[in-house]
This record gives sequence, C-alpha cells and structure tokens, in this order.
Amino acid sequence: MKFWSNPHVVSFARAVEHFESGQDTPRDLLERCIENIERHEQRVKAFVALDLEGARRAADAATQRYKAGRPLSIVDGCPIGIKDIMATRDLPTQMGSPAFAGWRPGHDAACVHALREGGAMIVGKTVTTEFAIGFSGPTTNPFDVRRTPGGSSSGSAAAVGGGMLPVALGTQTQGSTLRPASYCGAVGFKPTLGALHTGGVHPLSITCDHLGVIGATLDDTWRVASQISLRVGSPGHGLLNGASHMPIAPAKPQKILRLHTYGWSEVDSETSGAFEAFLETLAASGVEVVDRHGDARVAALEEALEADVAAALDIVAYEMRWPFEGYIEKFGTVIGERIHGLLKRAAEMTPVEYAALLGKRLELRARYSSVLRDLGAACYVTLSASGPAVEGLAHSGSRAFLVYGSWLGVPAFSLPLLEVSGLPVGIQLLGAAGRDGELCAAAHWVTDALTKGVSCT
Amino acid sequence: MKFWSNPHVVSFARAVEHFESGQDTPRDLLERCIENIERHEQRVKAFVALDLEGARRAADAATQRYKAGRPLSIVDGCPIGIKDIMATRDLPTQMGSPAFAGWRPGHDAACVHALREGGAMIVGKTVTTEFAIGFSGPTTNPFDVRRTPGGSSSGSAAAVGGGMLPVALGTQTQGSTLRPASYCGAVGFKPTLGALHTGGVHPLSITCDHLGVIGATLDDTWRVASQISLRVGSPGHGLLNGASHMPIAPAKPQKILRLHTYGWSEVDSETSGAFEAFLETLAASGVEVVDRHGDARVAALEEALEADVAAALDIVAYEMRWPFEGYIEKFGTVIGERIHGLLKRAAEMTPVEYAALLGKRLELRARYSSVLRDLGAACYVTLSASGPAVEGLAHSGSRAFLVYGSWLGVPAFSLPLLEVSGLPVGIQLLGAAGRDGELCAAAHWVTDALTKGVSCT
Repeated sequence: MKFWSNPHVVSFARAVEHFESGQDTPRDLLERCIENIERHEQRVKAFVALDLEGARRAADAATQRYKAGRPLSIVDGCPIGIKDIMATRDLPTQMGSPAFAGWRPGHDAACVHALREGGAMIVGKTVTTEFAIGFSGPTTNPFDVRRTPGGSSSGSAAAVGGGMLPVALGTQTQGSTLRPASYCGAVGFKPTLGALHTGGVHPLSITCDHLGVIGATLDDTWRVASQISLRVGSPGHGLLNGASHMPIAPAKPQKILRLHTYGWSEVDSETSGAFEAFLETLAASGVEVVDRHGDARVAALEEALEADVAAALDIVAYEMRWPFEGYIEKFGTVIGERIHGLLKRAAEMTPVEYAALLGKRLELRARYSSVLRDLGAACYVTLSASGPAVEGLAHSGSRAFLVYGSWLGVPAFSLPLLEVSGLPVGIQLLGAAGRDGELCAAAHWVTDALTKGVSCT
Repeated sequence: MKFWSNPHVVSFARAVEHFESGQDTPRDLLERCIENIERHEQRVKAFVALDLEGARRAADAATQRYKAGRPLSIVDGCPIGIKDIMATRDLPTQMGSPAFAGWRPGHDAACVHALREGGAMIVGKTVTTEFAIGFSGPTTNPFDVRRTPGGSSSGSAAAVGGGMLPVALGTQTQGSTLRPASYCGAVGFKPTLGALHTGGVHPLSITCDHLGVIGATLDDTWRVASQISLRVGSPGHGLLNGASHMPIAPAKPQKILRLHTYGWSEVDSETSGAFEAFLETLAASGVEVVDRHGDARVAALEEALEADVAAALDIVAYEMRWPFEGYIEKFGTVIGERIHGLLKRAAEMTPVEYAALLGKRLELRARYSSVLRDLGAACYVTLSASGPAVEGLAHSGSRAFLVYGSWLGVPAFSLPLLEVSGLPVGIQLLGAAGRDGELCAAAHWVTDALTKGVSCT
C-alpha cells in the first residue's frame, strides 16, 4: 500500500537540530515559510492577518540566542500561526464573525503568551469558521482548491499542510482540530480535556472545549503543547501528562483496540481499504489489533457510545447559551444561522435534562477507560475522517469519527499516514484521559513503523 | 457558650417562602435591602457601582412571575451583588485597579448570565482588592468601621453581613471568599475546584481560582451555587455535586476530623476557647471528633500539609504570569507592589520547579482524601480565620486557615457560628473533592445543631 508523504511540509523540529551549529537558523526557517506563504496564500487563504516583519525581528533575536548557545526553550525560533478565536496583543482577533470585525483585545491569550515567552514567532492569525462552529471562511485545501481544508481550525491546518508554517494552534469542541489536520496532511493533537490552558480563547462549551495543536510532525506538535503546559499551567490536571519529556520516545503498543463506530457507514471503499492495509501493516509489526468481533467488551462499548452520541451536540448547544444568548440579543442575525439553530435546540432543554446528559457521559467515560484497562491495550484506533477532504467550501466535512474523543475528553492524535486518491487521510489514536504522554509515545512508534526512513523525532 | 447571631442579615431563602402567597414579594425584599444600603453604605463602602432602578424593574417582573405561580428558578427575585472582577454587561468592571478604570466589557460573565437568567436581580458591583490579590479597597467591616471586612471579596461579604444583600458572588484563590465571610458574619462557600464556571471572571491562577458564594444563610448560598452550575455548567465536573437537590437536607456527620495546622499559633485565647466549646457541643450531640492525638494518620497529614504549604503561593505566583506579565509591561507601577513582588517570585522559578510543585500537590490531594475515607469521616473541621476581623483596613487578614482548601481544591464552607469579643468568627468545614452536596448536608446539620430554633433551610 501507499502511505501519505507531504513534500511541502516544513518542520521546526527537524530544522532546530541545525540551529546551534549555525547550519540553519530561525530566520532561514522563517524565510522558507514566507516563501511558501508567497507561493500559496493567494490560493489557500489560510490567514486573516500576517505580521511578517514582527516575525522576522523575533526570528533574528532567536537566531542570536542560538548563536550564543542560549535558546529560551524547545520552541525558541519556531514560526507559529494562531487561530483567530485566540486573543493577540498585536493583531486583531475577529472570531470569523462580523460581530468582532476589527476587534483588538490588547492582550495575548495564555497559550500565545506561553509561546512568545518561549521564543516562538507569531507569524499570523489563521482563518476560523464563525466562532469555531458557524459558517466557513474562505480557506481552501492546500492540495485541491475545490476542496474544504476542514474546520473549524481551517487556516491553521491549511497553513501547516501547505508548508507555510511548521505549527499552528487550533481548538476542538467536536472535531475542529483533527478533521482539518486529516484533510490537510498534518499531525493533529487534541489533549485530554483541561490539559491546556484556554484562557483568552473564545469559549463554546465549557465541558467540551479543548485547545489543539496542528503540526508538520508529531515532534512539532508535542513541543508546542508541552511548552504551553509548562509555561502557563493547565486548568484540569496541573500539567499535560508527559510535558516535561521531550521528545517522547517511541513505545510499541502491544495491543490496540479498533473502534468501529457509526462513521463507518460514510467511508468509501478506497479509504476503507487503505485503513485495513494500515491495520495489516501494524499486525505484521507484531501489534495485536482487537476489534468488536475479537472481544465482546469492545462491541458493547461501541454500542453504548453510539446509543448516546447524538447527545454530545446537545451538551455543546446547552453550554453555548453563555455567551451566545447575549450575542444574539446584541447582534441579531449578524450571528449565523447554525448558531441560532443550536441555541433554539438549547432553549428546549431543561437544566435537569442537561444534568442527565452529563451523568450519562460520566458513565461512558468510565466505561471507555475500563475497557482499555481491562484488555491491557495502549489505545483505540480508528480513522480521523470518513475519507479525504470533501469537495466544496461551504461544508467542513463530517465529524463522525471525532465527536467521541471530544465528548469523552480523552487525548487523541490524527496521524497523516494514509493516501486516498492522492490526498491525505488521518489515522486517529485515542488514549486514556490524563495519559497524553503515553499516547504520544505510541503515536511515535506507529508513525515510525509506517514511514520507515522518515524521521519523526 | 455564646453563638453568633446576626440581627441585620436579610435572607432570600426565608423570604421566598412567602412570595407565592403574596405575603412578601421580591420588590419588598429588595426595598428592605435598599433601606439597609441607604443606612449603612456610606460607612461600609461595599459597592463600586449600584443599579437600584434596574434592580427594582427586575424585582417587579419577578413579583409578577410569583403572582402568576411561574417563578423562573429557585433564585427568581433574589437580589445579588457581583464582585468587581466579574464582567457585567450594564455596569463597569474595574478589577479594583486603576488600570481598568471605567472598563465596560459589554457582556456578562457566565455566572452573572446564569443568575440573571434565573430571575435574580443584579443590585451592584462589590469592592474587590486589586485584581483579588493586591491592595485593599475602601470597604469597612459592617460591625466595626475600624476593622477590615477581609478580602479579596470585601464588598460582597460586607454587603451580606450588613444586611444590604442576601447573597453576593466572590472568588477564592487563597482565602478570598471564606475569610471575608468569617469576618462579616456570613456563610461562605468555596466549591470543589472547577465546580463553578469562571468564564468572564478575571483570572489569577488557573489551578487555584474558585468561584465562591457568600450568603446570609447556608440555603441562600447553596441556591445560588446550584443555579450557576445548572445553567452554565462547570469546567471540571460537569455539575456541582448535589446541584439538583434543593434544599440539601441536613445529614448528621458521624465523625469529623479536626485539622490543627499552622494557623493555630496566631489564634487568641478567646477564639480558641470558643472553638473548643463548639467542638464540645458537637461531641455532646453525638459527633465523634478525632484529632492528631486520636489518630496518627491525622497527625501525619497535618505535618505533610504544613511542610509544603508555603509552596501554595508559588503556584499562584507562577500562574499569575499570564496575564500579569503583560499588564506590568503595559501599565507599569499602576499595578500594585504586591503583584510586582509575586511576579518577581515567579521569575525565579523554572517550569521544572513548577511541575514539581504540581506533582507534590497531587500527592497531598490523594493523601487528604484517603485519610478522610480510611477514617470514615464526613469532613474536616477547623477555624475560618485566626480570630475576629483585625483592626485597620490595609491588611485583609491572615489566610493561614484557608490556604489548604484552595491549594487542594476541595470544597469548604465557613459557617458564622462563633462570637468572639462581640464579633463573628467562622467555623470551617472541608470535604472531599467533588462531594460538595454531602459537605453541604453536614454543614446544614452542624448549623442546626448549634443554632437550634434558627431555621437555616
């Protein structure tokens, strides 16, 4: 079988190895990104705002620090894009909504502050769908202008997939980091709920909002996540599990559980074939893959998840009442139809129904964990999307494979390993809550096993 | 012994029983509060901003709803005060800092939105110390103008203790809800970390910031906390444990563990005597009180907590780097000295040291829980403060007894049960994380047992 390989991708993690010797520099790396921005941006439209001169000044300062042998952190000199629902002190923050046109919060979100402090360069703000859940922006897929880049972190994924940046920040409430990562051939990482600080990021749903990272390689992605955690803390867990280990060494998963939930009815035969071939490659490497036919507990978990997954969006809708009820009062139809629709859905729910949904989710979280533990498996595996990026820009694609991880709040990676019709499709690994580092180690091993010869540390 | 009883206090929970019959109304209740505001505010200075006309309009609407037998929620018609670090759409939000003078965020914080939606009336914004951690505001203690009301939720506690409001919102990062509640003779409740939504509340420390509620009675306090939880969700736990049970029925604690940590060196003999008399009353009611002498595990826990408690403030300081590093850059010495000092302390810490502090805290959290569980105890008991409110307004009092609960993120109530030198002193009950409802039930029983004849449901 043919695995995906992206010729455009620009990795900070690979470049940084040559910074101390002076063979490469942060400024040179940035210029390679800018070259790709100049080449692709008119077509891809990944950015809402750019600050190339600011980034160049910051890159020169980082270059000097490496020359002196004193980089600030493991992200010093890394060019980064920031999803436009995250506050930045120097660039506008417009939420993909005309209601926030030209808005300047005057301060950095916690994640942006952490990255700047570590020496990363903020190259620009990337396109988001309206408030990360409403209508789509103008961004196109870097591999086919007629296809969506996925959403809601559309610009971040397109910029990374198109080689315009090594890393960009996203968010995920249902599928907003891993879906665009899959469509754009980038690595996506959605840590455990609460593992990364969301201060200064526009909220959708307090129990489902995750900060996410989209990167050229697993290493690019992990570095950025760990730096955010180490420099500004995490609301739920103190620190991202594994944050202080860099890079996370590969660890072979002895056993992986295949999740075969409802998204599979959407999958085309070529994608399905590529996924089966991937599982065969894993099995040939000595990894035991257990599915619903191999163990009744996996089948029972899948059924329990499917039975209630429709309610995942009800939780989001209910929690969106703040702050969106206030926005609709203030801005009316300037707020898009989808958001109006979700709030109507929320208005029909009672606090008691909401409490019941949360209770049910707690049960499913416990069940998800115990199946993993009882079977002694390292993680679950499934697709990140039902196929390659769909045609058209209005719809950002199905989130059928991604809702589970967001709903349960568990860590998930999308690895750009499959190629279908010449386009990338991601493999999704889902781990145990609070054990992000172990999942990263498994993702590292899987990536290595599938792309021998391509370094991913 | 003499127990505290506050003649001024105005309870919503008691009034609401007569709303449906029309014997009392939300408007009448509000007018009783306004009478006390007119009588005391010039001396107490609890408010930064008032909106009496807006509150009157909202009270009239609530009055109509009760007349029609259709109140919106269990807080419909409740006059409320909002700490001035919480965003409000109609009143300025000034953080107790000249850097935010006149700032109008234009939207409500999640907690404010939830309360308005439930029909509560926002009477005004209450004085906070600078960003809830810096210099004190002008508020005085409602029982003695020369004494501090405590901080940082100074205005909220003074307004409730002075009978100007039945409930007001606070926050607690170290001791900012329970300390002023203790000094002002009000009930204070700091739920489990993450149990109440802090969206739209100015942050200090992502792993230590709690929303808190200060009320005339336990019932007033619990109603407001549960409504916030049910209407806007909770970041850490989905719902405040027990939120859907109202009122929480009293449950007799069979066993309580006495915590005897370092604050005791500060306690005067009269306060100490009052506390011992309280414990004797409990014991006489058939509650087993176990202390360090009665069980070695309690002694070991106290030692472990004391050994590391100084580091609790290091975590806060490190996490304050966002957003305060940006503020100091922008506003310089407009930001007070204490905050500058904390950031200097943070600047001397490395991410690895920070990670070690978080790891240590996790250990202590587990130990705190397991002692409670292993001994089969309902909760811990200690003082809320080392005595009655101290003289002078510059210092808001010791937080020696309160740091533990904030550091560990466990639920805590301060019950205004002791009287020392004619002033109130709070009894603090601390429970198991995520079991706020059970702690409330124990607090209810303890209050009833100590104040027989005074209704607290």
